[in-house]
Amino acid sequence: MPRYKLIYFNARGRGEVARMLFAEAGVDYEDERIERSEWPVLKSKMPYGQLPVLEVDGVQIAQSTAIFRYLAREFGYAGKTSIDQALADMFVCSCDDLVKPLIDIYRCKDEKTKEEMKQNFLDETAPLYLSKFEEALVLNNGYLVGDSLTWADLVLISTMPWVEKMVPPETLAPFPKIKDHKVRIESLPKIASWIEKRPKTDM
Amino acid sequence: MPRYKLIYFNARGRGEVARMLFAEAGVDYEDERIERSEWPVLKSKMPYGQLPVLEVDGVQIAQSTAIFRYLAREFGYAGKTSIDQALADMFVCSCDDLVKPLIDIYRCKDEKTKEEMKQNFLDETAPLYLSKFEEALVLNNGYLVGDSLTWADLVLISTMPWVEKMVPPETLAPFPKIKDHKVRIESLPKIASWIEKRPKTDM
Repeated sequence: MPRYKLIYFNARGRGEVARMLFAEAGVDYEDERIERSEWPVLKSKMPYGQLPVLEVDGVQIAQSTAIFRYLAREFGYAGKTSIDQALADMFVCSCDDLVKPLIDIYRCKDEKTKEEMKQNFLDETAPLYLSKFEEALVLNNGYLVGDSLTWADLVLISTMPWVEKMVPPETLAPFPKIKDHKVRIESLPKIASWIEKRPKTDM
Repeated sequence: MPRYKLIYFNARGRGEVARMLFAEAGVDYEDERIERSEWPVLKSKMPYGQLPVLEVDGVQIAQSTAIFRYLAREFGYAGKTSIDQALADMFVCSCDDLVKPLIDIYRCKDEKTKEEMKQNFLDETAPLYLSKFEEALVLNNGYLVGDSLTWADLVLISTMPWVEKMVPPETLAPFPKIKDHKVRIESLPKIASWIEKRPKTDM
């Protein structure tokens, strides 16, 4: 087994799916949490000046989805067939498509444009993507892909809190399986135990 | 061998890496090119209302990078080891990071903000990412990962024309290997033959 070190801020953010994969697989790793004050010095040492970074026997891998997919593949959560792996990738890209407009809305300085973007997210983007996730969860007995946990499930449960901050409960009401899914995945014994013991952070 | 159909617009855009993978692997597929006039009717039949979509024996896979990665894996261009696959994924994400601000700049309606975003791209984003690609190409004898072609190379050569539209030649001058790389990959016999015979489109 290689020596793993995950370097990220003291936050769930874009690191937590990796930590949940380590927890679910029962694999040891160093969970290095950088304080914001240390970041300016460390930034230049990180590929692309970004976190998270995963070190595997000293080899640095950057980009959160590249890290998650690698760990999922190593630990058996990438999808059982090549098509399932592609579908897991598709759902992960779709979670990203769902979060990207939220970031754009957050950053937008023009109030009128911001309001239009928000309305478009509520009317179009959120229902489109959420209905696809709901459909997959119905089809696959509560998993996004196949008949067991993949990393796409972990990405979805990490995505939903961001969506929930923006959309009112009535927008989420038609998608009960997505709500159940989060509760159920977070109740898996090893994930639940990690959630119980992980450092408590705001994000 | 499964029956493959790639559905995309009559453009290179986000479909061309898939077509190059089919060409390089010598695998038959249906290259369905949708006219813009057909799109409003077809849109509702596509997962997420987006193209490209790859059909594999009728199973639909959406999201361009999920499609490319699947084909790369099937045809042997995903990376020879699991770490190489992760590094290929990392470079692909990084190409996406390089293109995303270009789209944001294009869409930005406020001239002052647009100019600031452009300057930031020229001063920070482009040099950072391009230097990482250059470094990898030097390290790996002209490939981004390992010692042979991966899909990350194809994504990079599809990304560079967008970057070249924005940045002046002097910004690209310190990165000669990136320029060589595009010429060399496009000269691989099967890729060159595909480029020669493919439908001529603007983008």
